[in-house]
Amino acid sequence: MVLRDRVGEIVESDRFQWLIIGVIVINAVSLGCETSPALVREYGDVLTALDHSALAVFACELLARLYAFRLRFFRDPWNCFDFLVVAVALLPAAGPLSVLRSLRILRALRLVAMVPSMRGVVTALVRSIPGLLSLSGLLVLLLYVGAVIANNLFRDTGDARFGDLGSTVLTLFQITTGDGWSDVMRDLMEHQPLAWIFFLCYLLIGTFTMLNLFIAVVCSAMQSAVPATAREVDEIVLEELRALRDEVRELRTVHV
Amino acid sequence: MVLRDRVGEIVESDRFQWLIIGVIVINAVSLGCETSPALVREYGDVLTALDHSALAVFACELLARLYAFRLRFFRDPWNCFDFLVVAVALLPAAGPLSVLRSLRILRALRLVAMVPSMRGVVTALVRSIPGLLSLSGLLVLLLYVGAVIANNLFRDTGDARFGDLGSTVLTLFQITTGDGWSDVMRDLMEHQPLAWIFFLCYLLIGTFTMLNLFIAVVCSAMQSAVPATAREVDEIVLEELRALRDEVRELRTVHV
Amino acid sequence: MVLRDRVGEIVESDRFQWLIIGVIVINAVSLGCETSPALVREYGDVLTALDHSALAVFACELLARLYAFRLRFFRDPWNCFDFLVVAVALLPAAGPLSVLRSLRILRALRLVAMVPSMRGVVTALVRSIPGLLSLSGLLVLLLYVGAVIANNLFRDTGDARFGDLGSTVLTLFQITTGDGWSDVMRDLMEHQPLAWIFFLCYLLIGTFTMLNLFIAVVCSAMQSAVPATAREVDEIVLEELRALRDEVRELRTVHV
Amino acid sequence: MVLRDRVGEIVESDRFQWLIIGVIVINAVSLGCETSPALVREYGDVLTALDHSALAVFACELLARLYAFRLRFFRDPWNCFDFLVVAVALLPAAGPLSVLRSLRILRALRLVAMVPSMRGVVTALVRSIPGLLSLSGLLVLLLYVGAVIANNLFRDTGDARFGDLGSTVLTLFQITTGDGWSDVMRDLMEHQPLAWIFFLCYLLIGTFTMLNLFIAVVCSAMQSAVPATAREVDEIVLEELRALRDEVRELRTVHV
Repeated sequence: MVLRDRVGEIVESDRFQWLIIGVIVINAVSLGCETSPALVREYGDVLTALDHSALAVFACELLARLYAFRLRFFRDPWNCFDFLVVAVALLPAAGPLSVLRSLRILRALRLVAMVPSMRGVVTALVRSIPGLLSLSGLLVLLLYVGAVIANNLFRDTGDARFGDLGSTVLTLFQITTGDGWSDVMRDLMEHQPLAWIFFLCYLLIGTFTMLNLFIAVVCSAMQSAVPATAREVDEIVLEELRALRDEVRELRTVHV
Repeated sequence: MVLRDRVGEIVESDRFQWLIIGVIVINAVSLGCETSPALVREYGDVLTALDHSALAVFACELLARLYAFRLRFFRDPWNCFDFLVVAVALLPAAGPLSVLRSLRILRALRLVAMVPSMRGVVTALVRSIPGLLSLSGLLVLLLYVGAVIANNLFRDTGDARFGDLGSTVLTLFQITTGDGWSDVMRDLMEHQPLAWIFFLCYLLIGTFTMLNLFIAVVCSAMQSAVPATAREVDEIVLEELRALRDEVRELRTVHV
Repeated sequence: MVLRDRVGEIVESDRFQWLIIGVIVINAVSLGCETSPALVREYGDVLTALDHSALAVFACELLARLYAFRLRFFRDPWNCFDFLVVAVALLPAAGPLSVLRSLRILRALRLVAMVPSMRGVVTALVRSIPGLLSLSGLLVLLLYVGAVIANNLFRDTGDARFGDLGSTVLTLFQITTGDGWSDVMRDLMEHQPLAWIFFLCYLLIGTFTMLNLFIAVVCSAMQSAVPATAREVDEIVLEELRALRDEVRELRTVHV
Repeated sequence: MVLRDRVGEIVESDRFQWLIIGVIVINAVSLGCETSPALVREYGDVLTALDHSALAVFACELLARLYAFRLRFFRDPWNCFDFLVVAVALLPAAGPLSVLRSLRILRALRLVAMVPSMRGVVTALVRSIPGLLSLSGLLVLLLYVGAVIANNLFRDTGDARFGDLGSTVLTLFQITTGDGWSDVMRDLMEHQPLAWIFFLCYLLIGTFTMLNLFIAVVCSAMQSAVPATAREVDEIVLEELRALRDEVRELRTVHV
C-alpha cells in the first residue's frame, strides 16, 4: 500500500516528468537520424540501442503508473494513447506488419500529453469534433453521390482518375480541396465537352458546404469564447439589480 | 377515412422510417457496386434486382404518403425532393436521357431528409442563400464583364482558354478560385507582355469581392448565433427592472 | 425652370430607370455576342447598330441628368462612374487606344448603380477599403523588399521568373497566393539548394500578414454589424433605468 | 548636457523624420534600380554613390540618436531593428557573406518604423504571436512525425521528394499548404498503391489543426476588439444602477 503511493508520487513528480520528456525528445531525434542511410551505416548500433533503451524506459514508466493507479489508469484518454503507442512497438514488426516500425515515431506525440499548453490545444481540437459530425457526414455523402455520378459519366473517357469508384472519390476529394481541378476538367472536356456542368455544380455545392463547415467551427469557437465575459458583466448587473430591489422592499416594510 | 389515418400513422412511425433508411443505404451501396465492371459481370442480375426493389419500395412509400396527406404532401420541400428523385428513375432512360440513369444515386441524398441533424444542417445552408444573392449577382456580373474584356484582349493569341466567350468565363472562374492562375498568365504573356495588368486587376477585385461574400456569410451566421444568448440575458435584466419599477410605484401609492 | 424640374422628375422615375436597365442588359448581351466571329459575320451590322443606339440612349440620359441637376450631378460618385464609362466610348478607339474598345462592356457595371441591393454591397465594399490601407501598404512593401532580395539571390540561375525586378514581383505575388509555389522552389533548388530558406521565410511572413489583413476585414465588418443590436437593447435598459430614477426622485420630493 | 538635449530634439522633430523617410525611399528605389544590369552599366556609379550616402545618413542618424538617448536607445525594439539593419551594411560583404549584400534592401523596412499606422499594424501582428506558439509547436511536431513516417514508407520509391528527411519535411509542408498535393500523391501511388491512406490522414489532421490555428487568431483578435465597446456600455449601466441605489438609501435615511 505504502509502496503503491510512493510509486504514484514519484511518477507524478515534476522531476520524473522532465526525465520522460527528455527521453521522448532523444528518442524522436534518434528515430529521425535512422532515416539517414549514412548515419545508420556509421552509428546504426547506437541508434538501435537508444531506441531500445527509450522503449524500455517507457515500458517501465507505464508499468509503474499501472501499478500505482491500477485500472483508474485507463480512465484518462491520454494514458490510453501512451499505452497504445508503446504497445505498438512491442509487437513483432516483421512481414506484413513492418509498416508498424514506421509508426514508432508516434511516440514523439507523447510530448503533447506532457506539455500542458499543447495538451490544452489538443483537448480543444478534440472537443470541437462532435459539432462537426453532421456537416462532415453530409460532405462524405456528397463525395459518395458525386463519385458514383462522375464515375458513370466519365468512366468511358479512359481517364485513369475516373477509372473506378475509389479513384473517382479521390479525384473528387482533390477537386473539393481546389488543387488542380481545372486540369482535371480540361482533360475531360476533350472527350466530354459538357463535363464543365458537373464540375461547376460540384464545386459550388462542395465549396459552399465546406465554407459552412468552417463557419460552424468558427461560430462554436466564438460562442465559447465571447459570451463568457459578456455574461460575467451581466451577472454583476443582475446582482446589483436584485440588491436594489431588496432595499426597496425593506423601505416598504419600514414604511408600512 | 380511418384507413387514411392508419396509413399516415404507419408512414410516420419510427420503425417505418428506419426501414426506409435501410433501403436507402442498401440502394446506395448497390448503385456504388454497379460502377465496378467486375461486380456487374458477376452479380449484375442481383444488383439490378436490388435497384428495382428499392425503387419499388420508394414508389410505394411515396404513394402511401400521397394517399395519407393528399396535396399537403407537396407543401414540405423535402417531400418534393423525394418525389422528384424517385420520379426521375421512372422516366425512360434511353438515348439522350441516358444521363438520367447516373442520377439514380441522388436517391442516396434522401438520407439527408431522414436524419434530423443533417436535415437541420441543410436547412441552415439553404436559409443562408438569400443573403448571398446580391453578392453572387455581383460576382456573376464581374465574371461576364471580365470575360468579354479578356476575350477581346486575348482572342488573337490563339490560346484555347480564351477561344470563345464560354471558355473565357470558365478560365476566369478558374482564376477566381486561384487554381493555376499563374500558368494561364505566363502562357499569355509570351504573346501579350502586358497581360499581367488584366490579371492583377481581376484577381484583386475578384478575390476582394469573394472575401466579402465569405464575410457576409460569417457575419449573418454570427448574428443569428451570438445575440440570441446576449438578448436572453438582457431580457432577464429588463424584466427585473420593470418589476422593480412596479414596486417603486406601489410604494408611491402606499405613501400618498 | 419648370422644364428642368420636369426633366429631373422623368429621369428619376421608376419607369425610366427600368428602361435604362433594359438598355444596359441588351447592350451587355450584344457586346457579348460581338465576341463570337460567327455571330459578327452573320449579324455584325445589327450588333453594331444595337451598340450605337445603346450608347446614344446613355448619352441622352446623361445629358438630361446633367441638365436637370447641373453640377450637383458630379457629387454622386455613381454619376461620375456613369459619366466616365459613357465618355470612354466616345473617344476615338483607333491605333494604340483600341484597347478602349474592349472596355465598352464596363457599361454593364452601370447595372450595379441601378439595382439598390447591389449598390449597397458595392458601397460596403468601398467603405471597407480605408481600413485596409496600412496592411496593404505593408504587403506592397514586403513584396518590393522580397523581390529585390530574391532578384539578387536568384538572378544568376537563369530562371526567367526571376529575370528582372518586374518578373520577380509577379513571381512573389504568385507565391503569396499559394499557386504553384512548390514548383517555383523546386526548380530553383536545382541551382541553389538553399533557396528553400528564402521561400519558407517569405511564405510564413507573407501568409501571416495576409491572414491578418483578412482578419482586419472580418473584425471591422463584425464591429459594424454586431454591436448595433447589442447597443439597441442596452439603450432600452438605460432608458428604463433613468425613468426609474426619476420616479424615485419624485417619491423623495413627495415625501419631503 | 545642453547639446545632448538639442540633438534629441532635432532627431525627434517632424522635419528630420520626413528627411529620413525621404532618404529611405530614395535608397529603396536605388537598390531596386541596381537589380537591372542595363541601369547598372549606365548609372552604376550614381547608384553606388546614392547607396553609400544613404548609408552615411543612416549611420549619422543612429549615432546622433545613440548620443542623445544613450542606452535607453536599445530599449525600443524598433531602434534595435534600425541598428541591426544599418550595422549589417557595414560588415564586409565578400566571400561567403556576399548574401548580406542582398539584405541591404531590408533598410526599406525602416519605413514601417517611421509611419505610425504601419507601426501599429506590425505591433499588433507581433503581439498576436505568443497566443499562437502552442498551436505552431503542435504543427511543427506533426510535420516532424509525419516526415519520419513518410520517409520510412516512401523512401524506397525513388521519389526525390521523399529522398531524405529534409526533403520530406519540405514536401509535407507543401502538402499542408495544399499546393499540388494530388500530383505528389498520384506519383507515389504508382509505386505504393496505398499511399493515399497516409495522404488523407495527414491532410485531414494537418488542415484541421491549421484551421484551428487560424480560428485562434481570429478569436483573439475578436476578443480584443468587440467586448471593449460592450463593456463600455455595461459600465454606464452599472454606474447608473449604483447612483440609483444611493438615492434609494438616502430616501431610507430621510424616512427613518
